[in-house]
Amino acid sequence: MALVRLIEYAEATPEVRSVYDDIMQTRGVDWINNFWKALANDPAQLRRMWHNVKQVMAPGALDPLLKEMIYVAVSATNGCEYCTHSHTAAARKKGMSDAMLMELMAVVGLANETNRLTNGLRVEVDPQFR
Amino acid sequence: MALVRLIEYAEATPEVRSVYDDIMQTRGVDWINNFWKALANDPAQLRRMWHNVKQVMAPGALDPLLKEMIYVAVSATNGCEYCTHSHTAAARKKGMSDAMLMELMAVVGLANETNRLTNGLRVEVDPQFR
Amino acid sequence: MALVRLIEYAEATPEVRSVYDDIMQTRGVDWINNFWKALANDPAQLRRMWHNVKQVMAPGALDPLLKEMIYVAVSATNGCEYCTHSHTAAARKKGMSDAMLMELMAVVGLANETNRLTNGLRVEVDPQFR
Amino acid sequence: MALVRLIEYAEATPEVRSVYDDIMQTRGVDWINNFWKALANDPAQLRRMWHNVKQVMAPGALDPLLKEMIYVAVSATNGCEYCTHSHTAAARKKGMSDAMLMELMAVVGLANETNRLTNGLRVEVDPQFR
Amino acid sequence: MALVRLIEYAEATPEVRSVYDDIMQTRGVDWINNFWKALANDPAQLRRMWHNVKQVMAPGALDPLLKEMIYVAVSATNGCEYCTHSHTAAARKKGMSDAMLMELMAVVGLANETNRLTNGLRVEVDPQFR
Amino acid sequence: MALVRLIEYAEATPEVRSVYDDIMQTRGVDWINNFWKALANDPAQLRRMWHNVKQVMAPGALDPLLKEMIYVAVSATNGCEYCTHSHTAAARKKGMSDAMLMELMAVVGLANETNRLTNGLRVEVDPQFR
Repeated sequence: MALVRLIEYAEATPEVRSVYDDIMQTRGVDWINNFWKALANDPAQLRRMWHNVKQVMAPGALDPLLKEMIYVAVSATNGCEYCTHSHTAAARKKGMSDAMLMELMAVVGLANETNRLTNGLRVEVDPQFR
Repeated sequence: MALVRLIEYAEATPEVRSVYDDIMQTRGVDWINNFWKALANDPAQLRRMWHNVKQVMAPGALDPLLKEMIYVAVSATNGCEYCTHSHTAAARKKGMSDAMLMELMAVVGLANETNRLTNGLRVEVDPQFR
Repeated sequence: MALVRLIEYAEATPEVRSVYDDIMQTRGVDWINNFWKALANDPAQLRRMWHNVKQVMAPGALDPLLKEMIYVAVSATNGCEYCTHSHTAAARKKGMSDAMLMELMAVVGLANETNRLTNGLRVEVDPQFR
Repeated sequence: MALVRLIEYAEATPEVRSVYDDIMQTRGVDWINNFWKALANDPAQLRRMWHNVKQVMAPGALDPLLKEMIYVAVSATNGCEYCTHSHTAAARKKGMSDAMLMELMAVVGLANETNRLTNGLRVEVDPQFR
Repeated sequence: MALVRLIEYAEATPEVRSVYDDIMQTRGVDWINNFWKALANDPAQLRRMWHNVKQVMAPGALDPLLKEMIYVAVSATNGCEYCTHSHTAAARKKGMSDAMLMELMAVVGLANETNRLTNGLRVEVDPQFR
Repeated sequence: MALVRLIEYAEATPEVRSVYDDIMQTRGVDWINNFWKALANDPAQLRRMWHNVKQVMAPGALDPLLKEMIYVAVSATNGCEYCTHSHTAAARKKGMSDAMLMELMAVVGLANETNRLTNGLRVEVDPQFR
């Protein structure tokens, strides 16, 4: 159970509904996931976060699928269950296969291993890398 | 200063040198970075880790540049200075521009933000995502 | 299911009961939460941890509500489900409203985002901040 | 050395300068810290992040000093050197004394301790907390 | 529910079965735990990870029980539920008592506390420690 | 530079000196490391933390060397530079060789890898482990 009430569309204020409508239209879906329903307890925060997600995840120097996979990589590293499920679902919708997911996780696991070996042994950065 | 001595090529055993040689040849460079020099204090671990890196980072379902960018994303999330420098250097060598780096970091930052909002508000996973 | 048995008041030794009694009296409650029941498997650790919590969370240079909110901020950052629930409950008892919780989470989320942007881009500390 | 060039005011585009000007005016300072100079490599991201910081850190349900202290708590938990220095400086400017800083850190330390005891022993959330 | 299908022995390819057989024989058990069944979606990764675990966890300069306890310490610090359960079970099989587990957790908790106090106060490393 | 002044013995109050004396006597050293000098800005916290360290790190169900190695494992996982240096020094004083350190780090690295693979793939805990 979330720490705050989840605000359903039916009971939302017009301000919240306009964000919900934009989310559904932008993503081509007909439902709102719980993350936004929780944020809706603070309509200004809901609007701000949606604006951020929309801007950052739009096509740019990187393609949207790559961005979703980076999102999954960070979420797996942080152990965020919700985020791992939701962004894996989004990445699959954009074309990630099981083979790509398994290989993504292999890189995430390896990076976490070498991050700790390097930090643990306090290895200094080579001048060539700076 | 690292916690252990860095093993230079000149003083390395034949076993260590053969791994060093493979690293330089595989990567097309003529020097060994400190990470491997630290691991060389345990030749079996050096060999094992290099075998892992070589296998995981090879082309497969994902292309090598994407893999390096995921490595940077994880390293930035974990705050590993060495790893961020070394894998950013590697990603740039494979074609990552400044614009791509800035956009990568934007996704990493945003993912860390929403990871904490979701975990902090204890949002439950929507059945549609499972 | 916890990794260790939860020690109920009825079966507790006098040493454990005296800590349980102090917890209930200090907090004005008539039940013991699972965290302490797990620690009670090591009575010396139970006593030490309760002594720490009691001393650190007492009014001092900071007021108790602010301290609970810092506790929630750290727990959300670490993704500790139990701690987020228990300290949010404690903070609410001390006066935290839903609006305050949402704003607290907004700061926690933003701090996690800029922490990673800063670490990821390896920004050096300005001399003015030291 | 940062991964990207730091954009100084003198060389900045009008778009970047307008954000820099707003930062200096809002904070009542006459210099720009390195975090923004790094973000300025992506003017849209600079604008977006400043907009976020300005909105989230403004007075609201929580007072600005409390928000800065939460920022310090998260940064200490994440081990972000830059963020700890910059937000401690900001908190001191808003009235945080050494005694308050020491007490803040005591709570941060304790929360990290009990977060791991709870997660480590896999203690289940008491129904009373939900 | 895992993000990928769990591959049961009955439906596994000969390549996967040979790893499963080695896991069961090495550990003296007659079942495969879910971690390996998930990795089996990528047989090369399954083989690689099992090879790593087998090599790293074998007796060497440190005894196997100590290694399992370090595994539990890291898993508790990272908040990995699966890993905490599985490696606590493994450590118990190798002789860890409840008293040892409680003391292990006390060290893990304390280390996490002082890690944050040190990072939070930005204490510099004494020359004597380097 | 630390966020707070380091309190040297010569300028310390009798209350602080008595803790410093106990640290030096217990450890058989004639100097105080920076961690304690930073905590001394809050004498009650200095006393409390030293009391905790002394109690938790004393011989018990686990031997002191094993405890120091767990401390190093947690510090490496958290990326705490100070703690990694200080507890590695302490572990070496208690008998940890370079071979033991390298093997410790191998376990820490591997545990961080499998923690993320497990969390990333959202593997469910096998009933046999509970």
